[in-house]
Amino acid sequence: MTRTVFVNGEYLPETEAKVSIFDRGFLMADGVYEVTSVLGGKLIDFEGHAKRLERSLNELDMQKPEEFDDLLDIHRKLVELNGIEEGMIYLQITRGAPDDRDFVFPDPEATRPTLVLFTQNKPGLAANPVADKGIKVISIEDIRWGRRDIKTVQLLYPSMGKMMAKKAGCDDAWMVEDGYVTEGTSNNAYIVKDGKIITRGLSNDILHGITRAAVLRFAQEAQMEVVERPYTIEEAQAADEAFVTSASTFVMPVVEIDGAAVGDGQVGPVAKRLREIYLDESLKTAI
Amino acid sequence: MTRTVFVNGEYLPETEAKVSIFDRGFLMADGVYEVTSVLGGKLIDFEGHAKRLERSLNELDMQKPEEFDDLLDIHRKLVELNGIEEGMIYLQITRGAPDDRDFVFPDPEATRPTLVLFTQNKPGLAANPVADKGIKVISIEDIRWGRRDIKTVQLLYPSMGKMMAKKAGCDDAWMVEDGYVTEGTSNNAYIVKDGKIITRGLSNDILHGITRAAVLRFAQEAQMEVVERPYTIEEAQAADEAFVTSASTFVMPVVEIDGAAVGDGQVGPVAKRLREIYLDESLKTAI
Repeated sequence: MTRTVFVNGEYLPETEAKVSIFDRGFLMADGVYEVTSVLGGKLIDFEGHAKRLERSLNELDMQKPEEFDDLLDIHRKLVELNGIEEGMIYLQITRGAPDDRDFVFPDPEATRPTLVLFTQNKPGLAANPVADKGIKVISIEDIRWGRRDIKTVQLLYPSMGKMMAKKAGCDDAWMVEDGYVTEGTSNNAYIVKDGKIITRGLSNDILHGITRAAVLRFAQEAQMEVVERPYTIEEAQAADEAFVTSASTFVMPVVEIDGAAVGDGQVGPVAKRLREIYLDESLKTAI
Repeated sequence: MTRTVFVNGEYLPETEAKVSIFDRGFLMADGVYEVTSVLGGKLIDFEGHAKRLERSLNELDMQKPEEFDDLLDIHRKLVELNGIEEGMIYLQITRGAPDDRDFVFPDPEATRPTLVLFTQNKPGLAANPVADKGIKVISIEDIRWGRRDIKTVQLLYPSMGKMMAKKAGCDDAWMVEDGYVTEGTSNNAYIVKDGKIITRGLSNDILHGITRAAVLRFAQEAQMEVVERPYTIEEAQAADEAFVTSASTFVMPVVEIDGAAVGDGQVGPVAKRLREIYLDESLKTAI
């Protein structure tokens, strides 16, 4: 089946969905994005994603192409047109396509931002069997730029990291800077020790995960202790549990880090429970 | 006049030149580029750019879409079709457009790289009057990723840097890491002190400039002393001269850094002479 996607006001077959070669997203990675999950045909934490999108745009002095309500309508229409029960919606905004390539930002009056959205159909996303056995990660140096709090399309290194993990027979990579774990290639990273959930605090060093915020809130509501501080790979390997969170994997247990089993190498009770709570709670507020 | 550009084997009017929204250049900044100057209708140091392009592709495990000779033919045809006497040719290769977005690299058998080229007509490029009065730069922190030796399209921060310079009433920004100048936003940076030309050595920290290599070679042939070592903004402000080099600006004098005049605030003799030598010598080998 051919997907229907959205490009600058038009709903198009995916094969016809194109942008100018002068688009600053293509030439200069001058764009931001969001990925929102769909469960039961409804959007998970849309408001959180919309708010972060607005922050990313503001940080980069980029225009908003549509109002919040219009973006919601486009999301819903794509879910409907593509019959998505479980999956994701990807949204990208770039600074648009000026007449020519230039490092200087184009005049926002003359160059409108580019807005692209498409769905990814993923039946079984919530009941993902990978969550029952957990994933294996390697550690790699974090050499990304210094503003990881802005969700830009500068994803080459995370993509390379995923390939390094794949070559090592693993599922993902945790990035390490100055000796401490920053995050996974497309997720926030956590360890559990003596009942405490430990994760790096928010700063420009990591993405301000929407799923991270929800999971930490639900954990505290469930009387679990949350500690926000950096930790090393060695500490993670010696932890009782480890896991990652993201919009598309929710809460995903990590059972091995650089070849060392975490805890007993099985999915632990904290990660398992947080995944259940997250899916239950976020479905309640899905729109 | 509408430019004729090149996209994946076709010569097209620029208004029809498009790539898929699934192109990894657009979604993940998974692409590399080169800019080659044209003077007198001929390509300056094409071989140097082609070699660096090949290195960038190799470093990223990316396929070469065309052989060296074919790329040369495309460059020459675009120069001819667009009647370029002085200007630039921009070339970009991305890992192509797979069927869907994924951090994992697509199978190179199934997904061919994207190849895009376009010209930029710049009459008066060699006789640029800006070179007679020099440019003013500000210093900013270098927060780019750690592989600046690979010429990727991850140009958001250099673009932001150019805007910071513009807002400060200046022309460009020099980036500083751990107290030392790395390079300009789209050029290599140099100072001159007591007749010595000082520039940071090659590493992953800076672009391996094609113009840099040529200028240093010409300088040594002209019996000028070249020292490759890092230097600070303070040392640059106290230097006799400063300048930058790039494929499109050749050798461009810098007369002010963070509001402080360099030397007497005028274009100095070393930068002036290097610009003349570079233009003379590179025209001799233009093809």
